[in-house]
Amino acid sequence: MRTLLIANAALILASLAVAQPQHGLNLMPMPSSVQAGVGQLSVDRSFSVAMTGFGDATLERGVHRFVAELSRQTGMFLQQKPVGSANPTLLIHPVHGSEKAQKLSEDESYELVISQSGAKLTAPNPLGILHGLQTFLQLVEITAKGFAVPVVTIKDQPRFAWRGLLIDVGRHFIPLDVLKHNLDGMAAVKMNVLHWHLYDNEGFRVESKRFPKLQEAGSDGLYYRQDEIREFVAYAHDRGIRVVPEFEMPGHSRSLFAGYPELASGPGPYTIEPGGADAVMDPTREETYKFIYKFIDEMARLFPDNYFHIGGDEVNGHQWDANPKIQAFIHAHGMKNNQELQAYFNQRLQKILSKHHKIMMGWDEVLHPNLPKTVVVQSWRGQQSLATAAQQGYSGLLSFGYYLDLMWPASRHYAVDPMSGAAASLNPEEKSRILGGEACMWSEWVTPENIDSRIWPRNAAIAERLWSSPEVQDPGSMYARLDELSWRLEWLGLTHRSNLISALHRMAGTDDIAALHTLAEVVEPVKDYARMDSLKTVWDFRAPLNRLVDAANPESNQARHFRDSVQAYIGSGFTDPAAEGEIRRNLATWRDNDARLRPLLEQSFLLHELVPLSEDLSALGVAGLTALDYLDRSEASPEPWRAQQLALLDRARTPKADLLLMVVAPVQRLIEASAGQTQKP
Amino acid sequence: MRTLLIANAALILASLAVAQPQHGLNLMPMPSSVQAGVGQLSVDRSFSVAMTGFGDATLERGVHRFVAELSRQTGMFLQQKPVGSANPTLLIHPVHGSEKAQKLSEDESYELVISQSGAKLTAPNPLGILHGLQTFLQLVEITAKGFAVPVVTIKDQPRFAWRGLLIDVGRHFIPLDVLKHNLDGMAAVKMNVLHWHLYDNEGFRVESKRFPKLQEAGSDGLYYRQDEIREFVAYAHDRGIRVVPEFEMPGHSRSLFAGYPELASGPGPYTIEPGGADAVMDPTREETYKFIYKFIDEMARLFPDNYFHIGGDEVNGHQWDANPKIQAFIHAHGMKNNQELQAYFNQRLQKILSKHHKIMMGWDEVLHPNLPKTVVVQSWRGQQSLATAAQQGYSGLLSFGYYLDLMWPASRHYAVDPMSGAAASLNPEEKSRILGGEACMWSEWVTPENIDSRIWPRNAAIAERLWSSPEVQDPGSMYARLDELSWRLEWLGLTHRSNLISALHRMAGTDDIAALHTLAEVVEPVKDYARMDSLKTVWDFRAPLNRLVDAANPESNQARHFRDSVQAYIGSGFTDPAAEGEIRRNLATWRDNDARLRPLLEQSFLLHELVPLSEDLSALGVAGLTALDYLDRSEASPEPWRAQQLALLDRARTPKADLLLMVVAPVQRLIEASAGQTQKP
Repeated sequence: MRTLLIANAALILASLAVAQPQHGLNLMPMPSSVQAGVGQLSVDRSFSVAMTGFGDATLERGVHRFVAELSRQTGMFLQQKPVGSANPTLLIHPVHGSEKAQKLSEDESYELVISQSGAKLTAPNPLGILHGLQTFLQLVEITAKGFAVPVVTIKDQPRFAWRGLLIDVGRHFIPLDVLKHNLDGMAAVKMNVLHWHLYDNEGFRVESKRFPKLQEAGSDGLYYRQDEIREFVAYAHDRGIRVVPEFEMPGHSRSLFAGYPELASGPGPYTIEPGGADAVMDPTREETYKFIYKFIDEMARLFPDNYFHIGGDEVNGHQWDANPKIQAFIHAHGMKNNQELQAYFNQRLQKILSKHHKIMMGWDEVLHPNLPKTVVVQSWRGQQSLATAAQQGYSGLLSFGYYLDLMWPASRHYAVDPMSGAAASLNPEEKSRILGGEACMWSEWVTPENIDSRIWPRNAAIAERLWSSPEVQDPGSMYARLDELSWRLEWLGLTHRSNLISALHRMAGTDDIAALHTLAEVVEPVKDYARMDSLKTVWDFRAPLNRLVDAANPESNQARHFRDSVQAYIGSGFTDPAAEGEIRRNLATWRDNDARLRPLLEQSFLLHELVPLSEDLSALGVAGLTALDYLDRSEASPEPWRAQQLALLDRARTPKADLLLMVVAPVQRLIEASAGQTQKP
Repeated sequence: MRTLLIANAALILASLAVAQPQHGLNLMPMPSSVQAGVGQLSVDRSFSVAMTGFGDATLERGVHRFVAELSRQTGMFLQQKPVGSANPTLLIHPVHGSEKAQKLSEDESYELVISQSGAKLTAPNPLGILHGLQTFLQLVEITAKGFAVPVVTIKDQPRFAWRGLLIDVGRHFIPLDVLKHNLDGMAAVKMNVLHWHLYDNEGFRVESKRFPKLQEAGSDGLYYRQDEIREFVAYAHDRGIRVVPEFEMPGHSRSLFAGYPELASGPGPYTIEPGGADAVMDPTREETYKFIYKFIDEMARLFPDNYFHIGGDEVNGHQWDANPKIQAFIHAHGMKNNQELQAYFNQRLQKILSKHHKIMMGWDEVLHPNLPKTVVVQSWRGQQSLATAAQQGYSGLLSFGYYLDLMWPASRHYAVDPMSGAAASLNPEEKSRILGGEACMWSEWVTPENIDSRIWPRNAAIAERLWSSPEVQDPGSMYARLDELSWRLEWLGLTHRSNLISALHRMAGTDDIAALHTLAEVVEPVKDYARMDSLKTVWDFRAPLNRLVDAANPESNQARHFRDSVQAYIGSGFTDPAAEGEIRRNLATWRDNDARLRPLLEQSFLLHELVPLSEDLSALGVAGLTALDYLDRSEASPEPWRAQQLALLDRARTPKADLLLMVVAPVQRLIEASAGQTQKP
């Protein structure tokens, strides 16, 4: 699922409307309705919670967690147990219970009313309560008088019922404690589905008791035991998150054939080694379906969710073409091509799932008239594909535009709407079939160490797109709120910010990493599939992931703030002294950085590749300062000088060490502006 | 155990010898013998481990952990399982096994021989292997060609058999995951005893099945279940760490009387509320010993270690004085005073412990001629007390000088030696009774969030004092190695460095904390018991711990480095341009910081108390820069100017918000130096 069509993103960006919330609250995702009042409710040591209405153990754990998080957030020791209902700070009232196994269709709305004397959170069921508690946590702010939440009335409900995050643990194993922190993060931004991509060619990550060679031959020893999975699914359920497992069939499944080569269409043998055959299941043998039946029977018990994802994408027809028996089968059954063979396979698969009371999901490629309309299509191809499915009567999800591994800025994901493009012209009934979307964390370049920084905080922008009204789309507001959300997410144990420091220490092998940090803060990994494309050898999941490209943030806040400063400075007609000061400080730091950093770069094999980047950054510092000096003197910079700088900019724009220097464009703007009045905006 | 006599620390510091290791390896604690060779052994993807000699599951887990840590440290995916012995990178050879329950007397030595073609680690038993693996991890460095360990031969063994860390979980509960990271840290610096102070007046933290009111009435619901304790003790055992429980008797035990008031000497009732009575057990009633017998019988099974700590310190005689029955008992038994009553109690306690095959430990106060010589005395009073015990035939441990809660610099703890002072003149047999020492983390001001920063990295200096030869005592070398160890410790999950950032975000309530960080980096919490002494109300364990004093590092690295720069600059006769540049950069940042920081300080009730500190820091920046300017111009600063600065220095030296500004002394040196030639060193 990695080959994404990247189309017209510039167009999408250009069509952004601007809708800035008026109330200024740092809420993410933005609720449907916020009525700000006057004053605040104090949150101090005496903070207490009481519950009325429906109650159960899940809800109690949720409230307990809420108090613990509030305690962590404020550094206060708070009364852990809910008290009787006499004058609590927060009264919680769910009207009735939730389904035992969480359903897609459940009401997730809530209402939170905060006055100066107390707060009340009501919801039809505990799912809404959990969301409302997250909103309460986001409302807590520090004031001159103490911690407080503002007086406000919030009525809130999601736009889409399916708001998911896919995590691929096949290509690189991710331990459960890391995944749990991500579940906490998902709950904080009201996402409700973890799509668990449990195996791929490189590794099978689930213990099967019926087919133990799946994990034994199909992994490097890193997989989840069944008791661990049960505990993990319960952990997610406690947080209002459904866990939808994905078991890829018939392609993307080489690890499966390592233990059970008889299932494959080619002769084998198979291993999880890099560069191995791109193998596909043999859909013509009855033994295949017997295996699948038993396997699904086992997995259906392990994963209580109604939905079951069978992958179905990127089926490589080579093995089918090369197998005479399979070709004979195709002809004997009057099929036209491999696609029809896959449809036949999917039909059989769907029946097996149906017997186990599971709704089948698959990627775009499963779409075929032979399949019943209950099948859910997940689209990595785009809104057109999604709209076509909806027109044919299928429900669907959008993942196109939400691939976190492509290292896009948050604003670009944020601009992608499941209802835009072809989907916009669907009729209401067809539109109702678009259930929502899923961010995707494919793990070719992901480790337990860097995965948080690949998912967060950008995933929160996608979460907002799927929860909030489509009118909420101002990237400025989004970034302002994302910046504040980001540091709060680290309270949950996520390490998307702190991890960079540890990685820089590793690369430098020493305590003093200040100069390295300066460089690391203004670079981003190359985008889309550029890193994969630039590989000189076959991609190897066991290769070290310890370079700066593995640690650098997908989106540089430092560069974004610098761009904003340059924009403000130019926009002010070069008269904003605060912006100019900020620009000068940055440029001077960069100018001097190469000299400070160079000795370190020479000492470390992991840092050596950064030498040209460091040189470019310092050269940009010099060029930018020179441009500023011209601007300060109101003197047009000489054309030959500007022409010289163009060469520098071209060089600096070129990726190096799989990294992009993200401050080239704003320095270019300064250089162009220095040409004189005609360049002013 | 909190009232420590702080005597003659200045004298101890003054007597420091200087012994800088020649080989320049960043090892801590320093091994007994290091013979550096030429060249290095590469540590790359092909890294492999093989084992010969004795083997068991504990050792296998240890090796597995070693490979995982090496993988984390290098960012490489390494083969997890030990391979056959053909040409491994590292061959591990333990001669025989360890005791099932780890004993004090076990041999912990190891030998690590690294050549360019491979490494071999041998040890009499797995304990030595674990230590040697930690040494190997510390040897891994990054070079221009790759990760590598240097060619070296290390023979190593501890100076003391008992190298402990006490953690008080009574006053503030610390969750087991936080404690586990600390066990990992202890193993990294070869400490081998966790002294678990499991209750105090404010909380009883162990589940008792026989006396459930202990944890139910005696805690705020935060305690360890027995299954959790068993798992935790096994976790420690895997890391070569013994767990010695402490159950305070007869004092420091108010939480115990909350559920069982009949054990107390006073009428009660008792709660864990702050300001409650300072209660003591009634040693005159047989019921007390019946309770203790049953309780110890239960706890002795839970904690397999040979040693059992009964506290015994700071017994408050008021309740005994006030109870006529107890006074009658004292007279009837011909005792002279309360101390003799405590000795009687201890004698009975010792017999109960002995029946359970436990060796009794207690603080200085338990020392009494009536007790058998098997009792181990832990001294918070000092080397004199320890020496007296040794002369009387008792074994002992030093904790005086190792109280981490006093916020001393690492160098001050480092200078404290169990064999110094009165202990230095003991004869060899008496000396052999000094088993080692223990760092103490009393938790009046400690939370799960800040505890790592209170223990690390300073605890590593104490670990070195207890492991390495007494000649290893150069603070410069210690700090250089500590700085490098410190960031590596964060790989283990310790948060002693990253935590400050999270705490600053909490206090600021916003993303931009740069100016706050500048201030936070140069302050330290007040020392000794100054914070407790300055309290205006009774100390309350439930009060919020969310001020800067709770987050600021006990020892400011920034201030230390600044002092070093000033020292280098003055020492060079004001001709060291690098040092001067560093000094100027710092001073200019501080000068400008108050203006940047002030708006934030006004917005947050937690930051408001920092206003005077921020003003002082900026004023010090101005004063220091002015002094530097005089020095640069070789012009003596005018006396009236210097007199003015003295007032500033006096003000800046005064603690504010329970914090000390740590750059006053070096700025003072610059001001004094600016007076002219006579001030030069």
